Amino acid sequence: MQKIINPQRIIWQKLTTRPNFNCKQLDNTVNKVFNAIKENGDEALRQYSLLYDKAVIKDFRINNKKLIQSGKKISNELKDAINLAKNNIEKFHLSQKSRKKIIETTNGVKCWQESRPIEKVGLYIPGGFAPLFSTVLMLGVPAVIAGCKDIALCTPPNKNGDIHPAILYIANLIGIKNIFKVGGIQAIAAMTFGTETVPKVYKIFGPGNRFVTAAKQTASMLGVAIDMPAGPSELLMLTDKSADPSFVAADLLSQAEHGKDSQIICIVNNLKLMGVIENEVEKQLNELPRKDVAETSIQNSKLIYFDEKKDIIDFINEYAPEHFILSVQKESEKFYLQNLKNAGSVFIGNYTPESAGDYASGTNHTLPTNGFAKTYSGINLDSFIKKISFQRISKEGITNIGPAVETMAEAEGLQAHKNSVTIRLKSIKDEKD
Amino acid sequence: MQKIINPQRIIWQKLTTRPNFNCKQLDNTVNKVFNAIKENGDEALRQYSLLYDKAVIKDFRINNKKLIQSGKKISNELKDAINLAKNNIEKFHLSQKSRKKIIETTNGVKCWQESRPIEKVGLYIPGGFAPLFSTVLMLGVPAVIAGCKDIALCTPPNKNGDIHPAILYIANLIGIKNIFKVGGIQAIAAMTFGTETVPKVYKIFGPGNRFVTAAKQTASMLGVAIDMPAGPSELLMLTDKSADPSFVAADLLSQAEHGKDSQIICIVNNLKLMGVIENEVEKQLNELPRKDVAETSIQNSKLIYFDEKKDIIDFINEYAPEHFILSVQKESEKFYLQNLKNAGSVFIGNYTPESAGDYASGTNHTLPTNGFAKTYSGINLDSFIKKISFQRISKEGITNIGPAVETMAEAEGLQAHKNSVTIRLKSIKDEKD
Repeated sequence: MQKIINPQRIIWQKLTTRPNFNCKQLDNTVNKVFNAIKENGDEALRQYSLLYDKAVIKDFRINNKKLIQSGKKISNELKDAINLAKNNIEKFHLSQKSRKKIIETTNGVKCWQESRPIEKVGLYIPGGFAPLFSTVLMLGVPAVIAGCKDIALCTPPNKNGDIHPAILYIANLIGIKNIFKVGGIQAIAAMTFGTETVPKVYKIFGPGNRFVTAAKQTASMLGVAIDMPAGPSELLMLTDKSADPSFVAADLLSQAEHGKDSQIICIVNNLKLMGVIENEVEKQLNELPRKDVAETSIQNSKLIYFDEKKDIIDFINEYAPEHFILSVQKESEKFYLQNLKNAGSVFIGNYTPESAGDYASGTNHTLPTNGFAKTYSGINLDSFIKKISFQRISKEGITNIGPAVETMAEAEGLQAHKNSVTIRLKSIKDEKD
Repeated sequence: MQKIINPQRIIWQKLTTRPNFNCKQLDNTVNKVFNAIKENGDEALRQYSLLYDKAVIKDFRINNKKLIQSGKKISNELKDAINLAKNNIEKFHLSQKSRKKIIETTNGVKCWQESRPIEKVGLYIPGGFAPLFSTVLMLGVPAVIAGCKDIALCTPPNKNGDIHPAILYIANLIGIKNIFKVGGIQAIAAMTFGTETVPKVYKIFGPGNRFVTAAKQTASMLGVAIDMPAGPSELLMLTDKSADPSFVAADLLSQAEHGKDSQIICIVNNLKLMGVIENEVEKQLNELPRKDVAETSIQNSKLIYFDEKKDIIDFINEYAPEHFILSVQKESEKFYLQNLKNAGSVFIGNYTPESAGDYASGTNHTLPTNGFAKTYSGINLDSFIKKISFQRISKEGITNIGPAVETMAEAEGLQAHKNSVTIRLKSIKDEKD
């Protein structure tokens, strides 16, 4: 770990900058695949699945029988764990429903918002070295709660053309029937244009490697909404002597194993703690099966000491971490929570590891990286809905606000806007006379 | 108006397709300006303001004196109208604040969301043929309510380098101090990179012509969030014999005067009504000062008759109008409101013209066009905030959900994730023993 003591504000920008990833470098590849899918649909999907996934795919759609039988291929223990996680994720995302509030802004002028699901959504579930079935819960549960009508799920097959049964089991459990074994750029292109098999969607969700990220950006230029821009996963942990150093080390390492590009920052306000944490990380690292991956990202990680609380919170807000673990004594905790401006998801206290939120506490694990927590929320129920505004104005209402509308429309040079009010006010007046 | 009777579903796509506007055509211009602003800051801003706005600008920032004195240059009547509109917009957007709800998903596992403002936002207010000061209210009021700390407002100057006093008056009224007289691509580029005078922001809001739209897309590729993709303004009106044809015509014309590319569709379920509306439009058109603009868009507008309610609502949902005026008898109204899936803002009843929502009812007038109402909400308080998720887990909580986390992490091949829980569970067990 790189140890840094009281870094001056002038170098904060450097410390908080993430590795540069320019999607433009992949533009040629992405455009080529997009054009092929647009022109040749499923046939092009087959070619790229063979090229990139080394898989021969005849039918991209998972048939219903396979879906239903997927449960037989995973242990009861895993099923129980998935069920517990699903229940918690459901509870938390259900609580995000908003109720209709009718506001009478002026007598006779009623305004309100109503939520409606985005009808057609596409969920991308990465394959890669491990089958990230937990993401099916994180994207699928809120999509179902929101009421999205057509939910398509794309995930890359392995070389045998198979999908991990836990992905299928969860999809079936929450009621997603349209599952396609296709990944990478070609999956995003398929959901952008639609093919004979894969439907076109309005919004694409889900994490992925840099090819998927670049493809999602291209999709967004073509009019398909995306959940958020993505980058390597990040953890910022703030801790003091109240925390158990072995817990701290375990949390840092859990982030480190995500990939060699994982971003890790640990902040302390106690110089001695730096050595303690480092030793503990070293010790636990040696016991990890994925030691090679974790070792690289731990080497690039930063262990920062600050004297002042004000510097700490300013630095955190400047960094805007995807995951923020806050494990400090009670009185400090309050200060940091009150002054926190930018973060994706916050884990408070000694017994709240990031893993809990990654899987089963109920919060979502699809979160803004790369400083985008300054602007974006993580995935929540809002991500799957849009709010329509409504207004109903009575004769009394238009009489009350009409003259203001007339004046403003006229001042903006929009005579017909004015006239649509004038004609109504005149009619009301004529009725009375 | 083009009259269409019972169009078959097979041609709906053609009927609902908006004029094609490909931002890529403008890419060269946009990139050139962006590069210049990035390299030369204010100096490049000056060059492009001269080139595009024919204005010589020394200092882009509006000084405080000018801001305060702006009120002297507009009538008391307009000030009163603005105040009424501001109050209604405030009331409606204040009602969109969400309160913190702590959910205990499992005993000892507490999860919640908290809203935080996006700290740095940029508001773009178009100039063009008319000074659209109402947009300052629509973007500025929610930005202030959300608590955005740094609000920058850019708007193009006229040839004399001036800004309409109503824009300044409203900005000052709601507390926006950082106003820059710069428009077009160069304004968006300035807020993307920051210049000596104009600050860099995290999210850019506001309507604009196709140059501004293309520039906002480029900004979004560079990591600045934007409110939504934009296109020409649209109105879909559904009416029956219960509506006053003169009101209907006035509403259609108010949309028509926005620009020659305004999109207008009027749907009726009564054949006779088609002729009546057409005659009324013709009559009112002749009295409009901006007749030439309105005439072109009215010529391109569509007057559609359907026999069946089901076809009507399906067509509306397929079109996903920015503005939807629903002026029908009570029993039909209920059917359409219940089955409406996609729209930006809805105006219900005979006395609810679109103009009311454009200015003063309280709802926002920055809305999704071009079918994006299928995916996006109009501007509301949510547009200026992000939600951070929080969780706090007790010893009891981690004991309850920990084993599920361990099982899922192991199944995903993430041993260190598992370990961050195991180490805590072990410590709790050791304490008890």
